[in-house]
Amino acid sequence: MFFEGTEKKLQLICSSKIPSLRAMGGSFWQKIVTAAGAEILSSIHNDDCDAYLLSESSLFVWDNRFVLITCGATNLVNSALEFIKYHDAQHIEFLSYQRKNEYCSILQPTHFQQDVEVLKKLLDGTALQIGELDGHHHYLFTSNTSFMLDNSKQTYELLMYNISGELVDFLIGSTPSVEKIRELLKVFTFFDGFKFDDYLFEPVGYSINGIKEDKYFTIHITPQGQSSYASFETNLNLAQTSLSFTEILLEIFNPISWDVIVFNKQNHEQAENQKDSWQLAECNFHTNHGVKVCYEHFHKPETQIFIPRILS
Amino acid sequence: MFFEGTEKKLQLICSSKIPSLRAMGGSFWQKIVTAAGAEILSSIHNDDCDAYLLSESSLFVWDNRFVLITCGATNLVNSALEFIKYHDAQHIEFLSYQRKNEYCSILQPTHFQQDVEVLKKLLDGTALQIGELDGHHHYLFTSNTSFMLDNSKQTYELLMYNISGELVDFLIGSTPSVEKIRELLKVFTFFDGFKFDDYLFEPVGYSINGIKEDKYFTIHITPQGQSSYASFETNLNLAQTSLSFTEILLEIFNPISWDVIVFNKQNHEQAENQKDSWQLAECNFHTNHGVKVCYEHFHKPETQIFIPRILS
Repeated sequence: MFFEGTEKKLQLICSSKIPSLRAMGGSFWQKIVTAAGAEILSSIHNDDCDAYLLSESSLFVWDNRFVLITCGATNLVNSALEFIKYHDAQHIEFLSYQRKNEYCSILQPTHFQQDVEVLKKLLDGTALQIGELDGHHHYLFTSNTSFMLDNSKQTYELLMYNISGELVDFLIGSTPSVEKIRELLKVFTFFDGFKFDDYLFEPVGYSINGIKEDKYFTIHITPQGQSSYASFETNLNLAQTSLSFTEILLEIFNPISWDVIVFNKQNHEQAENQKDSWQLAECNFHTNHGVKVCYEHFHKPETQIFIPRILS
Repeated sequence: MFFEGTEKKLQLICSSKIPSLRAMGGSFWQKIVTAAGAEILSSIHNDDCDAYLLSESSLFVWDNRFVLITCGATNLVNSALEFIKYHDAQHIEFLSYQRKNEYCSILQPTHFQQDVEVLKKLLDGTALQIGELDGHHHYLFTSNTSFMLDNSKQTYELLMYNISGELVDFLIGSTPSVEKIRELLKVFTFFDGFKFDDYLFEPVGYSINGIKEDKYFTIHITPQGQSSYASFETNLNLAQTSLSFTEILLEIFNPISWDVIVFNKQNHEQAENQKDSWQLAECNFHTNHGVKVCYEHFHKPETQIFIPRILS
């Protein structure tokens, strides 16, 4: 029942000299996604964005930019290679490749250092490790391009490990339904006006994409046993919403540990959760594209009592 | 500069029907150690025990029992296979194989499940995972033999991750000496009457074995960069010493996180460190050989502020 829910993420921004990436169409993006070892299950569209729900996570495409997120044993770097076949590397203004802390790295087809070697053949870049190897840690590769990103645009990622609660119980129960899951996730309350696309996986698992104008959010839930995991990601501007995603999602998913990664957190935004949790680690830095990266790693403020797990 | 300091540990107890294991001599044990990919550097002896200092950790041999501890990229299960070539599996009364949480599991020649498959061809056993996969966790395989271990005999293991301080600075300095390290470790104070054998590794690293009658202790220090680590192990009876090894060693090594594993902790022994640290996890159970296992995982009670590590 092991499934690696933790994701790899590829973001690419292209020069406006090339045609709209959205105009490449579904069959092009199927090739990109297939290269990583995933497939497109469904999609939703609006005037700004195409959102593809994948067998392993999600793809969001705007005119000159895409974000491809994959989990499981996918080889996401191959998607970058495939993309370059159609769009020369000189048209890439920015590339970032992020690899999150996996439950079981030995089951992955590659490790981050190998991925970086492949990426560096495409374009020069900087590879970073954030956090210590014996605990949660993340890897980030960014291209050494001179392009500056708009630092008012935020991305928020919440990665929750060892989740439990009503929603998790419902998902691993016998008859989960997307309607009930949407209700438990409160997506209609929190994402008013969004278009949704969601999917229940066999034997277990749930993904939802939502888009409104150029904004997206996505939630992926892997509820099973020793690798239970849920992730939330959005490019909604946190300063312009009264919601505390962290607070809401921690209540729903009750993780034992979690990571918050915010790109371009604004200075007036307060650190969340600190009073009710053990914050094990923090890392703040700027990339050479003007992006401010804030990484925080938390643990529930109590001792987890384990019973040993018998392995087959 | 990466070196995997975290250890694998093989313990074997043989029937008294076979000749003394000590009588097999150094050349036999060299074969056993070579099978794992390590070599014997030196040894000390007394009436009860032979202690071998290895290129990767330590070997202790008594008349009917041995404990082989290896680190790095050794394949310790091969030592069990080699041993069985000389001593039929029917003479094994008890076998345990423990694999501790590695900094970089992808660099290991095998993973625990593969090790278990090999071991199960030798003798039936039970494989356990202790702790969650996204944090510190340990694996333990024990043979399903009917042999009962003496539950008054203790083993204490302290595994310290991301160490720092005077001793670490001294070790990575230009001219470390064993005399000074022994002094900083206070071994003469705490292990009065013990015979010592220690070694300074190139480019860095230090190991010490100590024996007195049938008691041993061993300390291994890997001071370098992102994989700094120190471990302490002893079969001294904790209830019969006024020392708090945990307190003493945490002061010397100042780890960010650490694990305490005690086999046969006595009920009247108090839990240590809890007031001055975040105890993230705990696991208590009995093996089917009557051994009580207490596992505790701690973190320094403060947020670690990281700067991102640039990878080459």
